[in-house]
Amino acid sequence: MMNKSNLELSKRLIPENYVQQAAQALSVRENKIRILLEQRRLPDEGWDETTIEVLLQQLSLMDSNNFPGNCGAGEREARISSELVARRHFRMGHGIGRSGDINEVQPKAAGSSLMSKLTNSLVLQVLREAGAPSTASAFVVPMATGMSLVLCLLTLRHRRKGAKYVIWPRIDQKSCFKCMLTAGFEPVIVQNKLYEDELRTDIEALEKSIEELKAENIVCVLTTTSCFAPRTPDRLEEVAKLCKQYNIPHLVNNAYGVQSSKCMHLIQEASKIGRLDAYVQSSDKNFMVPVGGSIIAGFDKNLIEEIGKTYPGRASAAPSVDMFITLLDLGKQGFQKLLQQRKHRFNHLKQELTKIAEKHGERLLDTRHNPISLGITLSSFHGLEGKSLTQIGSMLFTRCISGAR
Amino acid sequence: MMNKSNLELSKRLIPENYVQQAAQALSVRENKIRILLEQRRLPDEGWDETTIEVLLQQLSLMDSNNFPGNCGAGEREARISSELVARRHFRMGHGIGRSGDINEVQPKAAGSSLMSKLTNSLVLQVLREAGAPSTASAFVVPMATGMSLVLCLLTLRHRRKGAKYVIWPRIDQKSCFKCMLTAGFEPVIVQNKLYEDELRTDIEALEKSIEELKAENIVCVLTTTSCFAPRTPDRLEEVAKLCKQYNIPHLVNNAYGVQSSKCMHLIQEASKIGRLDAYVQSSDKNFMVPVGGSIIAGFDKNLIEEIGKTYPGRASAAPSVDMFITLLDLGKQGFQKLLQQRKHRFNHLKQELTKIAEKHGERLLDTRHNPISLGITLSSFHGLEGKSLTQIGSMLFTRCISGAR
Amino acid sequence: MMNKSNLELSKRLIPENYVQQAAQALSVRENKIRILLEQRRLPDEGWDETTIEVLLQQLSLMDSNNFPGNCGAGEREARISSELVARRHFRMGHGIGRSGDINEVQPKAAGSSLMSKLTNSLVLQVLREAGAPSTASAFVVPMATGMSLVLCLLTLRHRRKGAKYVIWPRIDQKSCFKCMLTAGFEPVIVQNKLYEDELRTDIEALEKSIEELKAENIVCVLTTTSCFAPRTPDRLEEVAKLCKQYNIPHLVNNAYGVQSSKCMHLIQEASKIGRLDAYVQSSDKNFMVPVGGSIIAGFDKNLIEEIGKTYPGRASAAPSVDMFITLLDLGKQGFQKLLQQRKHRFNHLKQELTKIAEKHGERLLDTRHNPISLGITLSSFHGLEGKSLTQIGSMLFTRCISGAR
Amino acid sequence: MMNKSNLELSKRLIPENYVQQAAQALSVRENKIRILLEQRRLPDEGWDETTIEVLLQQLSLMDSNNFPGNCGAGEREARISSELVARRHFRMGHGIGRSGDINEVQPKAAGSSLMSKLTNSLVLQVLREAGAPSTASAFVVPMATGMSLVLCLLTLRHRRKGAKYVIWPRIDQKSCFKCMLTAGFEPVIVQNKLYEDELRTDIEALEKSIEELKAENIVCVLTTTSCFAPRTPDRLEEVAKLCKQYNIPHLVNNAYGVQSSKCMHLIQEASKIGRLDAYVQSSDKNFMVPVGGSIIAGFDKNLIEEIGKTYPGRASAAPSVDMFITLLDLGKQGFQKLLQQRKHRFNHLKQELTKIAEKHGERLLDTRHNPISLGITLSSFHGLEGKSLTQIGSMLFTRCISGAR
Repeated sequence: MMNKSNLELSKRLIPENYVQQAAQALSVRENKIRILLEQRRLPDEGWDETTIEVLLQQLSLMDSNNFPGNCGAGEREARISSELVARRHFRMGHGIGRSGDINEVQPKAAGSSLMSKLTNSLVLQVLREAGAPSTASAFVVPMATGMSLVLCLLTLRHRRKGAKYVIWPRIDQKSCFKCMLTAGFEPVIVQNKLYEDELRTDIEALEKSIEELKAENIVCVLTTTSCFAPRTPDRLEEVAKLCKQYNIPHLVNNAYGVQSSKCMHLIQEASKIGRLDAYVQSSDKNFMVPVGGSIIAGFDKNLIEEIGKTYPGRASAAPSVDMFITLLDLGKQGFQKLLQQRKHRFNHLKQELTKIAEKHGERLLDTRHNPISLGITLSSFHGLEGKSLTQIGSMLFTRCISGAR
Repeated sequence: MMNKSNLELSKRLIPENYVQQAAQALSVRENKIRILLEQRRLPDEGWDETTIEVLLQQLSLMDSNNFPGNCGAGEREARISSELVARRHFRMGHGIGRSGDINEVQPKAAGSSLMSKLTNSLVLQVLREAGAPSTASAFVVPMATGMSLVLCLLTLRHRRKGAKYVIWPRIDQKSCFKCMLTAGFEPVIVQNKLYEDELRTDIEALEKSIEELKAENIVCVLTTTSCFAPRTPDRLEEVAKLCKQYNIPHLVNNAYGVQSSKCMHLIQEASKIGRLDAYVQSSDKNFMVPVGGSIIAGFDKNLIEEIGKTYPGRASAAPSVDMFITLLDLGKQGFQKLLQQRKHRFNHLKQELTKIAEKHGERLLDTRHNPISLGITLSSFHGLEGKSLTQIGSMLFTRCISGAR
Repeated sequence: MMNKSNLELSKRLIPENYVQQAAQALSVRENKIRILLEQRRLPDEGWDETTIEVLLQQLSLMDSNNFPGNCGAGEREARISSELVARRHFRMGHGIGRSGDINEVQPKAAGSSLMSKLTNSLVLQVLREAGAPSTASAFVVPMATGMSLVLCLLTLRHRRKGAKYVIWPRIDQKSCFKCMLTAGFEPVIVQNKLYEDELRTDIEALEKSIEELKAENIVCVLTTTSCFAPRTPDRLEEVAKLCKQYNIPHLVNNAYGVQSSKCMHLIQEASKIGRLDAYVQSSDKNFMVPVGGSIIAGFDKNLIEEIGKTYPGRASAAPSVDMFITLLDLGKQGFQKLLQQRKHRFNHLKQELTKIAEKHGERLLDTRHNPISLGITLSSFHGLEGKSLTQIGSMLFTRCISGAR
Repeated sequence: MMNKSNLELSKRLIPENYVQQAAQALSVRENKIRILLEQRRLPDEGWDETTIEVLLQQLSLMDSNNFPGNCGAGEREARISSELVARRHFRMGHGIGRSGDINEVQPKAAGSSLMSKLTNSLVLQVLREAGAPSTASAFVVPMATGMSLVLCLLTLRHRRKGAKYVIWPRIDQKSCFKCMLTAGFEPVIVQNKLYEDELRTDIEALEKSIEELKAENIVCVLTTTSCFAPRTPDRLEEVAKLCKQYNIPHLVNNAYGVQSSKCMHLIQEASKIGRLDAYVQSSDKNFMVPVGGSIIAGFDKNLIEEIGKTYPGRASAAPSVDMFITLLDLGKQGFQKLLQQRKHRFNHLKQELTKIAEKHGERLLDTRHNPISLGITLSSFHGLEGKSLTQIGSMLFTRCISGAR
């Protein structure tokens, strides 16, 4: 807004050299935006809040509902009734996408569209740097992980006419099980196998399942990376090999796995060695934004595009905006620092829990394949079982410690 | 926060009678909140922004991520990285719902849950007052209309095992057509019939379709209320009668129909005379919030609950918060005023377009059954067709008039 | 920020014609800013909130504390500790002015300086249009009216060595009396004279005072425009004539007089006919900003500049920012509408109070020279006096009617 | 707002135990506020932004302009025209103080008054803990240091009728010199004396001045603590002794001295040994708020009150609100951490400058009595003088290093 001619005019009011210095300061910020538009990558250093706000504001002014003199006669005009609502969305109202494709540009919303495109670019790069450099395409979808898996499954339906089974190495997480049902498929559960302390994918049982059901009846194999100990991430590489061999799509629930280089590495390797079509992750669990979005990514650009086109209609821009802000705020360095912190804290927790376990005659489970979660025996509570376990949970809860199971 | 004991303490600093008057002013706002919690209905008069903000802030403080001394060790802790993001969501991060049910209460998010429950209550009442008083249940879902229709269709699948057809009186709207495909069903298109200027539902053809396909193979009939002239809202009552007779679910796409008492009346009447299971509407098109949410409502409480339970996992709270703010901001009077304004402007537009049409030797189509949209002949452009029509669109566009087709 | 080259780059992400339309929309706002910088006058139409915020944000980025890479080693670096404080001041921290002059440009704060300059220009124009077109200079000072009058008096001291009296037609307003004492002068009170219902300036008594004290001992005559009935605005023209004749400075307390064309007209006429050096008005009472600032204006540019130079050190920018926002938000039309409303409401109040007075056997005082305030007899309360008058006040107070005396 | 009865009602919507836990979380914040009101001291730990905002919001609701149903008929009703302005001031518009006293409670503004009282209490405690525990009274005044010194001087005038000299050990700071002139007094400059590298107060010359001018003609001695090397803080203890001996008021310009325990210690000791009436400090320089306020403090409660009563009229609340937020945000620990950081960085700067000076054949001045500022010889620039010195300044400036002289 304080463009060249406006800066020039300012020299009538304040001395020229002050204006020049200010102009230089403004141009530093303009350059940040230029580099973002040019490279569409995470900035090395995070941006300050002001620069982020300025950019969002300018993008918002590029949407038709903020055009001076706009006269919207239709039903899709991004009218916003409440000022409070308008402000919290930076006056962006059009959402993202068009009827035909959640990733398409909206003619009425150049700014929102630009924001969405940029966010998807940043997200793709983050996934690549987090450990899956071969990722071909990615986009933010304003639905949580479960519903996003539904969308992937519904897309696969078109490619796998007649198939109705989803092979699924068991994971005790409701919404994951439910997403197969919601998509209208029949989950075929493959029980995990105990290897010492760990529950790991039973590859033989999985292959047996495939042979019994026949490849053409199988929509996909749905594996999981991030999970609670003593279960470990699925053996993606071996599953991927089977999927390639039998020509079956392979979908990965990577819910909170981006934060773990091991999970990401598994995904990357599996995609190299065998077949891995798409992987889905939560935006709130990996990028610390409010619940509501997820990222669908994959190694086959066409499939990812097809998933985007399966979404009918426009969609909320809020999760994209949250990701946009958060990624610019963190920058590459900020994000990497968070990853390191998590790793460090995980090791610290492991050490301390080992000590506590020993002190109480218990034992930390050896679940070295699970880089995210830890388990501890509670053998001294044996016999009392249910009741006392609930009691522990409740004691933790009232001490404001949440997240333990 | 300035509770009784804190107000009492204030008397040590400022005179007692000033404190008393202030206490009274505070209690007026507390009472508004009390009445909202008690009645869970739209306030007659809209609230001021401050009262809305205060309530949201207090609700937010009831979520565990804002508990002083909270120590979250799990993956669902509503950590928010960016302050800018935190602020725009009033520091609410847990979203709504649980793995099992989008309408369930979250133990970690008492405040967000309360907000969501209240919003759904307000929304139900608004629909009832807008013309469908028999509506039994309603909830805000953080997906746009198309994807919400998908969710409804996926829920119906469980009730209609084996069925694969959706009977659909044609409407030229991409995302509506797409939603049936995305849900994995086969749309059976029933062409509309021209009655003078109007394109209306061909009831006979529809019944014929049912008989040909057989009721048990039909997932549902999907009708539409709000649409562009010369098409008119579907003849819901007659369709509902057939659905009842053949025992077929009836789903209504009421995208932008809440604003029209006629559309709502059609829905209400159809539910009385025949069968109408659920109707879906856009939150942005009817309540002027940013794109991203819709409202699923219906006359069968069990079905609506089942739809909520079909959604796998937690979901974005943003569309609910937007609706919550907007409805409290408008109040009953504000909302009714908007409805009246729309009616008034529609009539004004009709009058003026009639004049303009006459002036140019054209004619406003007589589409009296369509209470929302108007059509005009462009016969003088005949012959040139495509090109000049596009030109008109482009001329309107550069004059900042959007929404015309 | 979305400058030409950044818009150009955007075309790689979204279609060119969308970018062009958005660029045009952006340039409309840039033009508003251009015109402001060029003409430094109130825009005819008020600006929308977004444009105001964008401008403030850009100005803020022109201050050195917001320069990327700034390294402030001194004590005047506008460090802001709390983010909440930073945000509410748009990250402007340098205040306005320099040690030597409250109206001087700060090298470290080009943006704040520009804002301050523009505000003073807008304010000058508003005063001119409100009825005093000959006003030569004006500036916002971040002190309320009383303290600003002190500043004027302290400035006059330098011009009137040895003088110690201020001649002051009585007005029962504490801070006005106090300001003379605070400035270290001796108020010489000239009692008003009753003309029928009105208390008006006693010009003869005033001239007598001048002659008794001798002109050279008099710092100035301090008159008042806005006041409570039955007192009327001072007879500025006649006082001004005397001031000219005796060569005595004339200072006007125009506290809430800008809103009244009559008060402004008095000031203008007095400056033409006689001598009127400076007039001071409250920013909150005339322009509906929070308490804290006032406007010092006058017909002698040198004196006004001297007053600005008398203020030692930098000063709060908050009142200027509030004025800047408010004036841009209102625009010329908005401000004139407020003036008309006030006039209309005053007449309405007059009519209704007349009726009520008659109904209760009382009488509205005929104070036609007071365009702002009304008085009513309370003769039926006679005898009980003090107590019952207090009771009336208290009854109004508990009914939330404030401002009555 | 979510008071007991509203929480009780919430149990109809969400499970009782969730409400209870949330209620407990709310009460933690209510307790913080309770303790603040009870003790009126800086909290040990800083508050989070939300708690601060909630408190400000509630206080704001206690002001009459935010009363539901308020009908303000007067000129002091805190009407706020622009929503943007209203929000940035938390809808507080009444300012602080009354006509008679800047520290008095306003009947129309219970909340603002409470905020102001609390701020002054917090400020008093901070000064005591920073090194002047005997301080009897303190208040925030919405004028920068220079104008606040004027206010102090104007107050002293009433106590020192006829006196016209201010004795002032020289300090090269424009606004300090100007404040004596603005107050209408005659500065009597006492030149400093060179002790090795340091410029220190010449006590003998000062006493000589007193004797020459005679005590009764002297308004006060005005000393300075914080200053640029090679000048050092004035020898307050010795000056205070003289002031006591000759019965002359002693005013201290402690502009940016609160951050230095040495400066505060000087003040405290001087007040014990001799006479020190009041000391004035900048709020921006010591507490990192935007320019605009200062703190007047002293050891004689009556004098400080008198200064407050000298301010005519109400005043801006903005500097108080900024201080209120900042002090609650920092807490005792946060403030002490800042003080330690400053000390640490000062020593670091000293070390590094010593090295650089040596490297270039220069020398860091030995100004051990100045705990805030450092000087360096620039002897190699000798001969070129003016020009090259300016060049250094300019080179630092373009490298974004400001604050060097």
